[in-house]
Amino acid sequence: MNKIIEQTALIGGGVIGGGWAARLLLNGIDVKVFDPASSAERTLQEMLVNAELAYSKLTMAPLVKQGKIEFVDSIEEAVKNVDFIQESAPENPELKRDILREIEQYASESALICSSTSGIKPTTLQSEMKHPERFMVGHPFNPVYLLPLVEICGGEKTTAAAKQSAAEFYRNIGMKPLILRKEIDAFIADRLLEAVWREGLWLIRDDVATTEELDDAIRFGFGLRWAQMGLFETYRVAGGQAGMQHFISQFGPTLSWPWTKLMDVPELNEELIEKIVSQSDAQSGKYSIRKLERIRDDNLVAIMQGLKLNDWGAGAVLKEYEERLYEKAHSEIVASEPDLSKPLALFEAKVLPDWLDYNGHMTESRYLQVFGDATDAFLNFIGMDENYRKQGFSVYTVETHIRHLQEVAGGEPLLVETQLLGFDEKRLRIIHKLLHVPSGNVLATGEHMLLHVNTTAGGACTFGKILYEKLAEIWQGHQNLTAPEFVGNGIMNLI
Amino acid sequence: MNKIIEQTALIGGGVIGGGWAARLLLNGIDVKVFDPASSAERTLQEMLVNAELAYSKLTMAPLVKQGKIEFVDSIEEAVKNVDFIQESAPENPELKRDILREIEQYASESALICSSTSGIKPTTLQSEMKHPERFMVGHPFNPVYLLPLVEICGGEKTTAAAKQSAAEFYRNIGMKPLILRKEIDAFIADRLLEAVWREGLWLIRDDVATTEELDDAIRFGFGLRWAQMGLFETYRVAGGQAGMQHFISQFGPTLSWPWTKLMDVPELNEELIEKIVSQSDAQSGKYSIRKLERIRDDNLVAIMQGLKLNDWGAGAVLKEYEERLYEKAHSEIVASEPDLSKPLALFEAKVLPDWLDYNGHMTESRYLQVFGDATDAFLNFIGMDENYRKQGFSVYTVETHIRHLQEVAGGEPLLVETQLLGFDEKRLRIIHKLLHVPSGNVLATGEHMLLHVNTTAGGACTFGKILYEKLAEIWQGHQNLTAPEFVGNGIMNLI
Repeated sequence: MNKIIEQTALIGGGVIGGGWAARLLLNGIDVKVFDPASSAERTLQEMLVNAELAYSKLTMAPLVKQGKIEFVDSIEEAVKNVDFIQESAPENPELKRDILREIEQYASESALICSSTSGIKPTTLQSEMKHPERFMVGHPFNPVYLLPLVEICGGEKTTAAAKQSAAEFYRNIGMKPLILRKEIDAFIADRLLEAVWREGLWLIRDDVATTEELDDAIRFGFGLRWAQMGLFETYRVAGGQAGMQHFISQFGPTLSWPWTKLMDVPELNEELIEKIVSQSDAQSGKYSIRKLERIRDDNLVAIMQGLKLNDWGAGAVLKEYEERLYEKAHSEIVASEPDLSKPLALFEAKVLPDWLDYNGHMTESRYLQVFGDATDAFLNFIGMDENYRKQGFSVYTVETHIRHLQEVAGGEPLLVETQLLGFDEKRLRIIHKLLHVPSGNVLATGEHMLLHVNTTAGGACTFGKILYEKLAEIWQGHQNLTAPEFVGNGIMNLI
Repeated sequence: MNKIIEQTALIGGGVIGGGWAARLLLNGIDVKVFDPASSAERTLQEMLVNAELAYSKLTMAPLVKQGKIEFVDSIEEAVKNVDFIQESAPENPELKRDILREIEQYASESALICSSTSGIKPTTLQSEMKHPERFMVGHPFNPVYLLPLVEICGGEKTTAAAKQSAAEFYRNIGMKPLILRKEIDAFIADRLLEAVWREGLWLIRDDVATTEELDDAIRFGFGLRWAQMGLFETYRVAGGQAGMQHFISQFGPTLSWPWTKLMDVPELNEELIEKIVSQSDAQSGKYSIRKLERIRDDNLVAIMQGLKLNDWGAGAVLKEYEERLYEKAHSEIVASEPDLSKPLALFEAKVLPDWLDYNGHMTESRYLQVFGDATDAFLNFIGMDENYRKQGFSVYTVETHIRHLQEVAGGEPLLVETQLLGFDEKRLRIIHKLLHVPSGNVLATGEHMLLHVNTTAGGACTFGKILYEKLAEIWQGHQNLTAPEFVGNGIMNLI
């Protein structure tokens, strides 16, 4: 069992160092940061705000108490008495070696030291170190606080134990360490990225595509695949039932075709084919191709649905597609003046993927969100629009009584019916019924007391004429409706 | 306005042709399929089952009535009287030219003809056609029924109008057409893929990484980024406030370093840099770097959460991470032995930026979210952890009464105090007080009735021993506390 790492130092606090700071702090680990740039502290604090926001959305699990951050004025102050040091200085071997020399002057001999370098060999960096055995590359990916991958690459003098300790540390802060079996420039991921970058530069230089077109070619296509399976598992599935062997026999020949400008290619001989096929079997052989297809499809669906919530990329395409489907399906339905002799149906919604709790049902607070949106639709209906609010008036909910009657799963269509229970010159009381559209079942009821307020002066005030008259008009109809029998009730006593 | 395409022919019904069939059918379009392979029909029907399953999960919007599929025995039967023909034969220019010759023999002169080729130039394929003006490449990505991208590449003789018609057709079936501005081998996406494939082969050949390690280097890192932004927008963000210019100045020099084995690189001169920077401005300049970071983070969070539901890749890492957070929170609370003679303080939070409404205050539903999280903390405290839930039991909220007393602004620290008001063998009733930490002001109160349920059998059931005993222990203290006077009250009548 390794020593628990609680004190860390970051040398360099830019995009990468700042990302490390955020990930460590959010995992309860103290960091001391040294960065000679005067703007470093401000930029890092801004990044930390982003990271906190991202983590608040990432998980409903209670986060650990944040670690403490301290900005210091020298490498000496940063590295004294810490167990772990991450260097994220610019990509300059000389500079990095100088930093490592200074780190070793003040740090404990047993502190782990990792470099964030994107491609410089650890053997090069550790060549002049006094205790090189605890030094390695720990190469993360931006944004460091969210992306799980960290490549661990040791140099000639790095011990296996040190690599294992670093891997354990990274795993504990939510990462996926990948320990390299061989030391090469640029490791693994950046080799692939560099290849794409080089081909991308050719395409821009030759006016084949713009940066935007290149990005679109990625994010609407293979980029979606690569968020869940990589190159080889994807191609295994693309090979159909015959898998990788079939894929290579179909696309192997293209290696000698001018399909990129990068023509320094390896020879795809029997030996290399056999190696790929057997490695692919070891990797994915436990699943049939049909099963892999379903896994892939479920993942792609989940990714596109997630992106749809953000109206971005492939999610925006899906959103537009759905809108057209809805439009088409409802093309006959003409908007009509609502019938005030029955409850108003002003709000529809669908249970979205991120509304689900650990039981797979719509989580508690989303009921109130739907009721809140239905209340907004009701307020809009009585004339409280953006313009009305701009004049310094609003309507606040002061009291809410929700009865949860039935669960509802993801994707289900919802409808809210709203009944006016009464109003006076500054308050109104409504009841919402949340209905599951296909079954008509009542999933929940919400009873709400709302107060008209002057947002600039503060405090309650009487409704404007528009709102009051519309409320009176609705009341003409709704006063004849029976109030549900639970209305006005409190929660029962159990003692 | 183009003619609506309703009748189509597919020449080739393998992985790509079958994917086209599925997409077209699910969008209400009839297809006739010709494929000489005897297994084609069975394989295609299996793929259609997958596609139907995927679409049932992809959208809750009402799908259109499926098109009809017919398997025919010749190209002649397939292409007669159709408006659109998609060729998806093996990557062999001679074979494809033969097929095109036969298609033209029987098809209408005005039918659009697209080839699914991954890289052969349309000029090569159309060279012997009688009506080459309506022929182009329409290159999709597997699985064709889910991935939006389709690259449209015309040859020397293709008309712009034909390309526009094809783009409109593809857009109508939910795709994202990308019309190429220049004709080159392998178009755009496959150029990038081929570059990665070539570098990947080197890495396997040189025993640097296995297929699995290469895939992991993609799907836990940059693959997640590429599902939502591509190479260039990602790098613009990575450049920090200085954007693309900064990124290139930092990573431009690596072009001459041995970071891949693919060393045929373009010269990164002033002109090329200026082209990239200005294209990137045109693409992403409407967003600040800070805004792009948030968009990126929201997308990454959504992707990882989606993958978590499938327990796959980066989602599996997140799932494991969450489980550890829950475990830790539970052991801390258990270890803390709170004072049971007063309300429990089990949950702290901070008002996050995306919790604010249009008035700049914490929005309505976030109050219930905080109360829900406090309820979870209370349930965790009485022993309802991940393990307990795995046995098929949970506790659901059945009733909630919230009183909104004061507004609270962004960034403010919150604390929830929880009092047990009573319990029986399957229900418990609690009251939460939401406190603003610095002032001690009560911002809201939440009264909740909770029910212990069997999630597998459905319906209420008695508390497990652990939970019941802990409730009894808390009750020993809390029964002596005064219940707030508003407890049990309903919402008042306004009539």
